[in-house]
Amino acid sequence: MSIAPSTSARGGPNRPVAPGNVLALDLGASRIRAALVTPQGVVVARGETLTPGADGPDAVVAACIERLRAVASAAAARSGGSAVGVGISAVGPLDARAGVLVDPPNVGPAFRNVAISAPVASALGLPVSLERDTNVAALAEQTYGAARGTTDFLYITVSTGIGGAIVAGGELYLGPDGVAGEIGHIPVALDEPPCGCGGAGHLEAVSSGSGIARQARLAMETGRATGLVQLASRLAPRTIEARDVAAAEDAGDADAAAIMERARRSFATAMVGLVNVFNPQLIVVGGSLARAQADRWLEPARREVERVAFTIARRRVRIVPAELGDDVGLIGAQPLLGLREV
Amino acid sequence: MSIAPSTSARGGPNRPVAPGNVLALDLGASRIRAALVTPQGVVVARGETLTPGADGPDAVVAACIERLRAVASAAAARSGGSAVGVGISAVGPLDARAGVLVDPPNVGPAFRNVAISAPVASALGLPVSLERDTNVAALAEQTYGAARGTTDFLYITVSTGIGGAIVAGGELYLGPDGVAGEIGHIPVALDEPPCGCGGAGHLEAVSSGSGIARQARLAMETGRATGLVQLASRLAPRTIEARDVAAAEDAGDADAAAIMERARRSFATAMVGLVNVFNPQLIVVGGSLARAQADRWLEPARREVERVAFTIARRRVRIVPAELGDDVGLIGAQPLLGLREV
Repeated sequence: MSIAPSTSARGGPNRPVAPGNVLALDLGASRIRAALVTPQGVVVARGETLTPGADGPDAVVAACIERLRAVASAAAARSGGSAVGVGISAVGPLDARAGVLVDPPNVGPAFRNVAISAPVASALGLPVSLERDTNVAALAEQTYGAARGTTDFLYITVSTGIGGAIVAGGELYLGPDGVAGEIGHIPVALDEPPCGCGGAGHLEAVSSGSGIARQARLAMETGRATGLVQLASRLAPRTIEARDVAAAEDAGDADAAAIMERARRSFATAMVGLVNVFNPQLIVVGGSLARAQADRWLEPARREVERVAFTIARRRVRIVPAELGDDVGLIGAQPLLGLREV
Repeated sequence: MSIAPSTSARGGPNRPVAPGNVLALDLGASRIRAALVTPQGVVVARGETLTPGADGPDAVVAACIERLRAVASAAAARSGGSAVGVGISAVGPLDARAGVLVDPPNVGPAFRNVAISAPVASALGLPVSLERDTNVAALAEQTYGAARGTTDFLYITVSTGIGGAIVAGGELYLGPDGVAGEIGHIPVALDEPPCGCGGAGHLEAVSSGSGIARQARLAMETGRATGLVQLASRLAPRTIEARDVAAAEDAGDADAAAIMERARRSFATAMVGLVNVFNPQLIVVGGSLARAQADRWLEPARREVERVAFTIARRRVRIVPAELGDDVGLIGAQPLLGLREV
């Protein structure tokens, strides 16, 4: 496969990418995905496996390397093209410079300070760059997606959790330790509900998929939400999830509607705060929950920003859906390697 | 007065300042203050007047120029030293590049898009730099005060309102329009109380002096807070203020204590969010309310950050009181002119 230095339909990458194809790894709590990605952001080979978190860190790292090798072999067999580096998108918190996963929740037991970049570099014989998944997604949207042409924007993903990334002056805003941008963990509701991180009333606790599900379970446990209790009895053995609460809202359940409405309202008010603090050109909203209900999340946020954000900042900002979908963590490997200048 | 290129007791300015004395103007809603400030951050002459906001924008600008001229004359008479420029700290929102006050609340009626830099430059025959008061304070603390030696910090002032500034990579984080950093206008309490900006449950509405006073009045109006009602009757004709609520808390009034406790708790939870989002080295807390009750505001914030902020970020950050007091908006004129490279 030859990669001509041509431009894509949208005019080519909007920020530096790697000087050739890259191997991309998207290491999530439930899935490991690998791909070969062209400088135009096109996925030309891919593979996927479940994250063997229960088998421990070594098994997870080994599974990553195996998927990357399989993709590299498949791509080489088809086209003879080789990769110039490996870009890894992984759940945080992580130490990007050291190439280490620090203590990601939900991946598996004993997952603490696990080196990922060095073993991958050694096994593949390629330079490796690692970043938090939301930062990689922001780079991808800036290079190929909704944030093309902008230098100051926020990326927010509303899914099982709520994550974020800050791009300022064209570059990722990382903070002294590289862990800035945890937009899901700002307060929106002073007293409740509790957040998975231990904080009270964080945006993630109110507005994320896991937060919505937790609020539904709490409402059921306290004898409220009779409609949700009936729904849950039909779902057994699995427990109620955010999509069930959303479906119950659509079916007219008032308790479900109250939880969903509060989730969207919290999201909207958080957007006001972020507009006031960052004066961004753009807020790009990704993630499965926002994607499934794009207008129902983004429109109230736009209205609330228009209503109360500071004048100059609200005139500037646009709030738009992400464009790159599920592959965002893979194709972001290109600008991630571009940062490294392989 | 000669300004030797010597170092101050703390080792000299920590970031570029002007190559000589500067005239400083601190334009607030209630007071106009002017001073001559040395490169070491020492105020060597000063003057002050009430802001004639009711007399309209022209009167305010004229009063600014008059105060600056008086200070310049007094300094020249004493020492023969002249200033190399004028640094103006003013209430936001403002357009620093255009030198215009956009629509500052509380200054006076018809105060909209008022040019301040050009008339001051013309009257004094000196280059002028304008910035929002909180940004000037952050520069001052970074140059001479609590943020010396740091490159990534937040400055927060808790006073009548709550304002902020972001310094990232050593420089002010301004956003595309220069209005970033409105830290007082992030949500902390989803539903109430209303904020002066129109938003619901913003940090300023819960934790600022004006917010505390407004909550006390609301509690009194709704038939609660009998202790505060008695207090207010003794204060007439003036209305209850934050300092009265604080005094009532100290005197054992439960309603006052609840309002103050919620104000401090909201501040603490907001600090957690800011630590998670910015991964700062330092948070510098200034303003009259935080100064009057430093330990009672900063200690709970430190404890809450230690309890729930993300591990790497919470290990990094320190939360400290501002060092420069009431003159912060004046001595910040030095690094503000340093930015301009007069």
